[in-house]
Amino acid sequence: MNVGKSIKNAVIVGSGNVATHLAKAVAQADIAVKQVWSRDITNACKLAADVKSAGIDNLSDMCTDADIYIISVPDNAIRSVAERMPLTNGMVVHTSGGTPIDAVARFDHHGVMYTFQTFSKNDVVDFGQVPLLLECHDTDDSNRLAEFASRLSGTVCFASSAQRLSLHIAAVVSSNFGNHLVGLAYEFLRQNGLDSKLLHPLLRQTTEKYCTMSPFEAQTGPAVRNDTQTIKRHLNNISDSELADIYRTLTDSIIRHHTKPNN
Amino acid sequence: MNVGKSIKNAVIVGSGNVATHLAKAVAQADIAVKQVWSRDITNACKLAADVKSAGIDNLSDMCTDADIYIISVPDNAIRSVAERMPLTNGMVVHTSGGTPIDAVARFDHHGVMYTFQTFSKNDVVDFGQVPLLLECHDTDDSNRLAEFASRLSGTVCFASSAQRLSLHIAAVVSSNFGNHLVGLAYEFLRQNGLDSKLLHPLLRQTTEKYCTMSPFEAQTGPAVRNDTQTIKRHLNNISDSELADIYRTLTDSIIRHHTKPNN
Repeated sequence: MNVGKSIKNAVIVGSGNVATHLAKAVAQADIAVKQVWSRDITNACKLAADVKSAGIDNLSDMCTDADIYIISVPDNAIRSVAERMPLTNGMVVHTSGGTPIDAVARFDHHGVMYTFQTFSKNDVVDFGQVPLLLECHDTDDSNRLAEFASRLSGTVCFASSAQRLSLHIAAVVSSNFGNHLVGLAYEFLRQNGLDSKLLHPLLRQTTEKYCTMSPFEAQTGPAVRNDTQTIKRHLNNISDSELADIYRTLTDSIIRHHTKPNN
Repeated sequence: MNVGKSIKNAVIVGSGNVATHLAKAVAQADIAVKQVWSRDITNACKLAADVKSAGIDNLSDMCTDADIYIISVPDNAIRSVAERMPLTNGMVVHTSGGTPIDAVARFDHHGVMYTFQTFSKNDVVDFGQVPLLLECHDTDDSNRLAEFASRLSGTVCFASSAQRLSLHIAAVVSSNFGNHLVGLAYEFLRQNGLDSKLLHPLLRQTTEKYCTMSPFEAQTGPAVRNDTQTIKRHLNNISDSELADIYRTLTDSIIRHHTKPNN
């Protein structure tokens, strides 16, 4: 890799949750943030102030001499923002899991740096732990982007658009659906006069388990034991038909999964 | 509360995961473990050695002068063990969420101390964080058991058998089903040539979120945005019909939940 071509400064395009955490990670890696763009100048200037940068709300004011431009805007705005940005010899990447690389293909040097994490603005996120999934068409661009990404995070790898889609599906199934189940469980507890906080130690321990061992080996509960008596009793005590439907679907899946031949 | 009647020693009935963590927590609270019973003498002696106690495998060898007897055996064995234990003036409790209090009602002083956590023998568990859900028929017994339980854990509260059942249902929905979804997501990633570890930072952050804010407010993903295009694309890329069924069921539930009137 040509160290002389190493990325020394960046423009952050966006001021949302991902852009905010990214801008801070970039600044902390001693990479100068030249500009922060947002269609809302207040948001642009607010984030810019946090990373000693300048806020802009007009894409025509964007400098063209930065080493990298990181587009972190909502998925449906990526193409239109990329189309209105001035052409540049710097690298232009977007950070979306669900958007193909060609959304930024009008730039000579382009790619994807998918930040595989859920962000809220005020979260404390250890960015060094956030997996960054890269895609580039050009080998030199790949090397340059990988070198840059590895200064932000300890987990950097390459993933095609198809693999990013698989990652997104896996994230929806485990994180989005898991979060919804926790919401339903909290609601059920409150309806039965119990504090939802009682679940926290169990949920934290469950997470520790599936991050250190196989979830299928760690599986507990009535379904994996095929304890039909308990399953029936539970279903008799769930009055909400939607929750009962979910209970049945997932119980069936666990039973089938753990009675598969050769499993 | 009569401090003179405070519990000073205990017998642990069982040597499984819950019994093991409980015995250690009791010993660490400077409460003497007089005996550890298991139907397997090797297991009894192994756990007994860890808590400076004596192992027995014959219920007729059980001392009758302990202050408390904690029955932590599989749910379907609780009644038969309780029936074969010698009568005692000490308090006898079981630790099961799914078993009514009457399983130990042949003893004058009896109750339930449900340990609301998932345990594996070699887990590091901060027992002080494990919610202990108590049930007693008698007020003096309640006070005594609450005083004892509060020496083991910072979260002690009373819950009826019906409330324990609700807790168990909530635990199945959030923890057992959540764990299964993570297993399915890992499997899906491996089938698509990706390392399942990539999900860990996201899953840890998701857990932090739903332990500090409302999961329904924290909900992200295509379903809550009613992003039908992404949902369709995901379903087109899930070849396993069981996973597709789960995807549809939970997506529908999220959509319905977030479009409810007054929600």
